Amino acid sequence: MTQLLADYRQLAAALKVEAIALVPGPNFTRALGHSFMSHERPFVLVIPAEGKPAAIVPNLELGSWEQVGFDGAVFDWRDQDGYAGAFAALAAHLPMTRLAVEGQVMRVFVHHALKQAMPDVEIIDAERQISGLRMIKTAADLAALEAAISLSERALHRVLEGVCVGQTEKEIESALIQALFAEGADDLAFTPIVAAGDNSARPHAHARADYKVQSGDALLFDFGGRKDGFCADITRTVFVGEVSDEGRAVYDTVLRANLAGLEVTRAGVTAHEIDDVVTGVLEASPYADRIRTKTGHGLGRDVHEAPYIMRGNHQELPAGTVYTNEPGLYGPGLFGVRIEDDVLITEDGCRTLTTFPKELMIVG
Amino acid sequence: MTQLLADYRQLAAALKVEAIALVPGPNFTRALGHSFMSHERPFVLVIPAEGKPAAIVPNLELGSWEQVGFDGAVFDWRDQDGYAGAFAALAAHLPMTRLAVEGQVMRVFVHHALKQAMPDVEIIDAERQISGLRMIKTAADLAALEAAISLSERALHRVLEGVCVGQTEKEIESALIQALFAEGADDLAFTPIVAAGDNSARPHAHARADYKVQSGDALLFDFGGRKDGFCADITRTVFVGEVSDEGRAVYDTVLRANLAGLEVTRAGVTAHEIDDVVTGVLEASPYADRIRTKTGHGLGRDVHEAPYIMRGNHQELPAGTVYTNEPGLYGPGLFGVRIEDDVLITEDGCRTLTTFPKELMIVG
Repeated sequence: MTQLLADYRQLAAALKVEAIALVPGPNFTRALGHSFMSHERPFVLVIPAEGKPAAIVPNLELGSWEQVGFDGAVFDWRDQDGYAGAFAALAAHLPMTRLAVEGQVMRVFVHHALKQAMPDVEIIDAERQISGLRMIKTAADLAALEAAISLSERALHRVLEGVCVGQTEKEIESALIQALFAEGADDLAFTPIVAAGDNSARPHAHARADYKVQSGDALLFDFGGRKDGFCADITRTVFVGEVSDEGRAVYDTVLRANLAGLEVTRAGVTAHEIDDVVTGVLEASPYADRIRTKTGHGLGRDVHEAPYIMRGNHQELPAGTVYTNEPGLYGPGLFGVRIEDDVLITEDGCRTLTTFPKELMIVG
Repeated sequence: MTQLLADYRQLAAALKVEAIALVPGPNFTRALGHSFMSHERPFVLVIPAEGKPAAIVPNLELGSWEQVGFDGAVFDWRDQDGYAGAFAALAAHLPMTRLAVEGQVMRVFVHHALKQAMPDVEIIDAERQISGLRMIKTAADLAALEAAISLSERALHRVLEGVCVGQTEKEIESALIQALFAEGADDLAFTPIVAAGDNSARPHAHARADYKVQSGDALLFDFGGRKDGFCADITRTVFVGEVSDEGRAVYDTVLRANLAGLEVTRAGVTAHEIDDVVTGVLEASPYADRIRTKTGHGLGRDVHEAPYIMRGNHQELPAGTVYTNEPGLYGPGLFGVRIEDDVLITEDGCRTLTTFPKELMIVG
């Protein structure tokens, strides 16, 4: 715990804030080595630039909290009493004028409780910097990521063996989820996307219970299991029974875009450069009007995290970054194709952590 | 859609705000009849007290958004351009001085984007009132809840048949999750708690990969599937192989508390009264020092929602409310027992939606 807390301590100093407040989620889990649920109960870890950390802990979590071995002040509160007292006690214990928070994780009611207890505190959204500490993956991070990816790929192999015309998207989604857990996932990284035919043209489609897969359909899987806190995020698009000439041409275009992105990936490349090359391939094709998304995003404890791989993001990417290379083409009312790899940036290139074949595949 | 939007419109008027802003989550899904993911992308539905609604929609969601049949202004934005422009356009389209939000769902970065576009707007946390609209369940809500509960109970029956000494908590958890999806769950309502022995004494325990279930262990399952947007939330505690006299005595105490709560439940009872009776049974037992939690919480689209069943909450509960009756006793280092039913309040009493037996059960 100590080493990781030191990261946040240094960041607090660099941000010129007295402290960083984390709430249950990927940074909280990383800092403590234990994960907690929050629901309607504020649960806050405060790491000051100097001195010991402090925490606001729901009383019923104290039994689990003991496992953390926390060396700092703990302000617990019971549902019956409400949490205002715990926030007031924190404010008295650790007076603050500037506090950095994770804007994409902390919810408004916790923000309000902090402001209520410390009316003059300036609350700064330092999501980018706080979550940015997770960008370069350690060997342990990579081992967990690779385990998540490996089990997810085994699950997809298992499901594709059983796909046949007449199954609904929902049935295939259910089989995929069961296979993920059977292969050892701790959790889903996100609700899988299993989309056939015209539904595959929606980047974030929901599986339909009333659509049966037909011969000739594109069938898109965007999914991943979570293992030891790390997320896989993989997309493969297959065709059922047969593939049209247009299906083949679109698939080849997306695959070329994916490969072009891998080609230019190495330590020091910018997010802009990768997206420019990948999206450039799509733009140069006859299907440029089917572009809907950027190339991808960082991947780790969160399924979407920094860096965002898009034009205009001129951030240089260091070795150890893992990002998703997921070009797609989406023809409304027709079909969509997306191919997504999880890519580790290395000093002299990259290593594609996903190993599932990318050649056009006909199933069922 | 129209009927449900009318609910929020009237609430906005009652709250004396120009509008209510919803973000992806249970209220958003209820209002639109469609669910969306959000991740790092602001996605906001604004329902004014008067006039048509408006929405800020990530561009890549427009294909799915079309299915909503939305009659109002849409401000979409692309990752490459950022979302500030969409918020500014919303502010120009719908000037506001007071805006109500769901404090337990909206995250700080969306709050900040709203304040940036409308520096003078007062943002009010109306979580209680907004989510309170979901408190009285419709017939359709109840049908979905009962489907979620029924499939969850079938999953538990299936898993208990296979439990045996030597399995790890993680293995049993994985079997339970697979059974939930095999029985038709759309999703998990939450990550299940499968806790044996001393781990069962932690109200929010995590399943351990390195603990094998032993004869004499208490084995606690707190879990639920989600179906059509509604959550089951069920706890049963069984004993493996054999049960000690203390195990039996604690179990009987918790069961008496649960039954006493059902006894006093009817339309018009207050949350305080139910908790007072339930917790009163535990307090009168030799195990009063093992009390850690209140009686329960509302259940519906969210696994924890209003009303919170605790002393001090003098809210009268109307017919149509569904709450969890989940007394527990937790002996640190020993074992815990919790029994949780999902209870529908009716005019003259209640209907327990959970039907899984509550008699002490020895398995394996």
